[in-house]
Amino acid sequence: MTQLEQARKGIITQQMREAASYDYHVTAEYIGREIAEGRIVLPHNINRKFSSIAIGHGLTTKVNANIGTSGKHADIEEELIKMNAALKAGTHSLMDLSTGGDLNKIRTILLDKCPVMMGAVPMYATASKAIISKKPLHTITADDIFEDIETQCCQGIDYITVHCGITRNSISKMLNSKRELGVVSRGGSIMCGWILKNEKENPLYEYFDRLVDIAYRYDVTLSVGDGFRPGSVCDATDRGQVEELITLGELAQYAREKNVQVMIEGPGHVPIQDVKMNIELQKRLCNGAPFYVLGPLTTDIAPGYDHITSAIGGAIAASAGADFLCYVTPAEHLLLPTPDDVYEGVIAARIAAHSGDIGKGIKGAIEKDRLMSKYRRELDWKGIYSVAIDPELAKQRRSQSESSNEDICTMCGDLCAIKNFNECITK
Amino acid sequence: MTQLEQARKGIITQQMREAASYDYHVTAEYIGREIAEGRIVLPHNINRKFSSIAIGHGLTTKVNANIGTSGKHADIEEELIKMNAALKAGTHSLMDLSTGGDLNKIRTILLDKCPVMMGAVPMYATASKAIISKKPLHTITADDIFEDIETQCCQGIDYITVHCGITRNSISKMLNSKRELGVVSRGGSIMCGWILKNEKENPLYEYFDRLVDIAYRYDVTLSVGDGFRPGSVCDATDRGQVEELITLGELAQYAREKNVQVMIEGPGHVPIQDVKMNIELQKRLCNGAPFYVLGPLTTDIAPGYDHITSAIGGAIAASAGADFLCYVTPAEHLLLPTPDDVYEGVIAARIAAHSGDIGKGIKGAIEKDRLMSKYRRELDWKGIYSVAIDPELAKQRRSQSESSNEDICTMCGDLCAIKNFNECITK
Repeated sequence: MTQLEQARKGIITQQMREAASYDYHVTAEYIGREIAEGRIVLPHNINRKFSSIAIGHGLTTKVNANIGTSGKHADIEEELIKMNAALKAGTHSLMDLSTGGDLNKIRTILLDKCPVMMGAVPMYATASKAIISKKPLHTITADDIFEDIETQCCQGIDYITVHCGITRNSISKMLNSKRELGVVSRGGSIMCGWILKNEKENPLYEYFDRLVDIAYRYDVTLSVGDGFRPGSVCDATDRGQVEELITLGELAQYAREKNVQVMIEGPGHVPIQDVKMNIELQKRLCNGAPFYVLGPLTTDIAPGYDHITSAIGGAIAASAGADFLCYVTPAEHLLLPTPDDVYEGVIAARIAAHSGDIGKGIKGAIEKDRLMSKYRRELDWKGIYSVAIDPELAKQRRSQSESSNEDICTMCGDLCAIKNFNECITK
Repeated sequence: MTQLEQARKGIITQQMREAASYDYHVTAEYIGREIAEGRIVLPHNINRKFSSIAIGHGLTTKVNANIGTSGKHADIEEELIKMNAALKAGTHSLMDLSTGGDLNKIRTILLDKCPVMMGAVPMYATASKAIISKKPLHTITADDIFEDIETQCCQGIDYITVHCGITRNSISKMLNSKRELGVVSRGGSIMCGWILKNEKENPLYEYFDRLVDIAYRYDVTLSVGDGFRPGSVCDATDRGQVEELITLGELAQYAREKNVQVMIEGPGHVPIQDVKMNIELQKRLCNGAPFYVLGPLTTDIAPGYDHITSAIGGAIAASAGADFLCYVTPAEHLLLPTPDDVYEGVIAARIAAHSGDIGKGIKGAIEKDRLMSKYRRELDWKGIYSVAIDPELAKQRRSQSESSNEDICTMCGDLCAIKNFNECITK
């Protein structure tokens, strides 16, 4: 039985208890009830062992880090280093998006060593095999697609991105929207090309039942999305994107009825004034299903700094109800990230998530900030480091300065406002 | 005559024309009308020469970088390097916040070499002199304060931060608010201590006329602020902060009647859900005066990454109407920033400002993003670099990768979505 099936029967599973011990402001019973309603997912393949974390309504915002090789750069050792960088920075989830090298081997090794939930995009394997054997991508068959999905689910992937909402209908709406930057999702562009060239419906949509059956057997969470996510702030919230979202809402409802957990993937590049509306629209059209956003990036003009543009959008999205933030690294739009990029990307996303959690009113979220303020008031640097999101960096930066052994810092020196104020109210 | 006085008489000055050539989506006449109404300021000391930029309603959001020595770290050469780093990163303004070394010399050298508006906090000089001569800060006299203000205005400072809103009344409201972190503004904490120890009213409030007279003579813009800005998200928008803001609104109205330009300084550390409200409140209480925000930082727990926390708050603030963002560097709360910190801080603030400008609907703002999207669609890397906020970094990052001579990048390799999509719609 899947977590959803058990939740519906009122069973509180070990995984729900683990998730409640992570999100300690809620109970396992709460998590069970929300899973039953489809507002929380608990991605945990029956073939894997790790301590569960849940994603969705009423919980702290979670963070995912994408790692993986590409055809131009494939080194499993480097991916392991990236995995550890992401874990050290505090990611809640990893996605293996490898498209180069021995994909099965890479996936198996990462799954074996990964102590958090792991997602994948099975279509990347299907497409990479086609490219290696010089087969055009539109000659991929429905069986090719479902076989790779089955393989990866059987190997233990906890959630899979499946571009089920790219349909003949949504393609027509998207093309009619006259986008600046077309389709920027890899899976989305492959599926879009497949449909246009074959003049057939998307197998992941047409045979959605087959997908649901596989997901059910391994309790794999479907992360349906977001082939038409905007790749330009100019394209955000256009008819193509919203048409796809409508379909995703329908599919999510269907999958839930079959006891398969679903979350929805979302944009993308979104101007700041549209971010909140995008979250509200998703929640309405998808019956409150957890929302997994890729950014959003609030401007396109900052390659090299897209961890910052996505922290802006991600924080606003989280505060408006987004449940799961896919990180964006400083390397985005330029090259495959290095381990340092991965680390910095996770930290930026965690800052966005925590800022959003304060905004969402997650119980206890602001208490960390209150503690930081107490330590700052007391000029207690050990305390400050202990609640800092990156204690090592904070400590290391300060240690470079002339005041590293004093209670003040080199920023204000003897004009330290906190010290002055403490003195003027205690005398 | 000040810019405001001339604006009131319908005179279009050379400075207004320069400002309109920077903010080319508006006319010099528009800038003049808004200066007359107090909704735009044009900080430009009569004793300085540089190409003017204006700040306020209907204009692009501007960015300031703070530089300056401290008692613990004072090296003029390093400050010049920081100034150049800030300018290279595209700052619109610099503030010399030096509190260590020969302050007059540092200020004079920076003013001489600075090609943009320059602000200062004259109280830092007054307080630093007291500290050097081992005089307690509360023995500073009103004359000490006004003499330093006059000196700095005469030297050419274009705008000055003056903590006029710290009054016996606002102190009582602030203390009653039971803050987690008291007063974190240096000038604010000095003034607060002065008032409490001397049991007298703030000279900058009591003799506000004297301040206005000096500002008028040099056409120095008053940046009134924000001694009670919250230093903890737990303290945001409390009665102390709002009481001070009410006073600042009154003082701004008075100064404008005397033909002195005023902008209002604002928070600080503000949880994400309060940022927009803070901007709306300031605009209402201060009759639309330009708002100069220091952050806001949406969480306290990220020392080492406060350029990111402030980019989140700054972008939301700008989109809600804030006019001028004071940068925050990665060194904030830890040590005096290095030139690299300064550079990164300005870029982060510019990302926030531009994201906000798109949100504000500034005419033409999104066109940069449209152009970026066009270059991405065309896989035109030279074009991409040309509109990137930091062309050098974008180019340098990509050049490290295996695909630097191809049209694709190592992120997706041959699975480039843009390339695939371009092919599938052109065939």
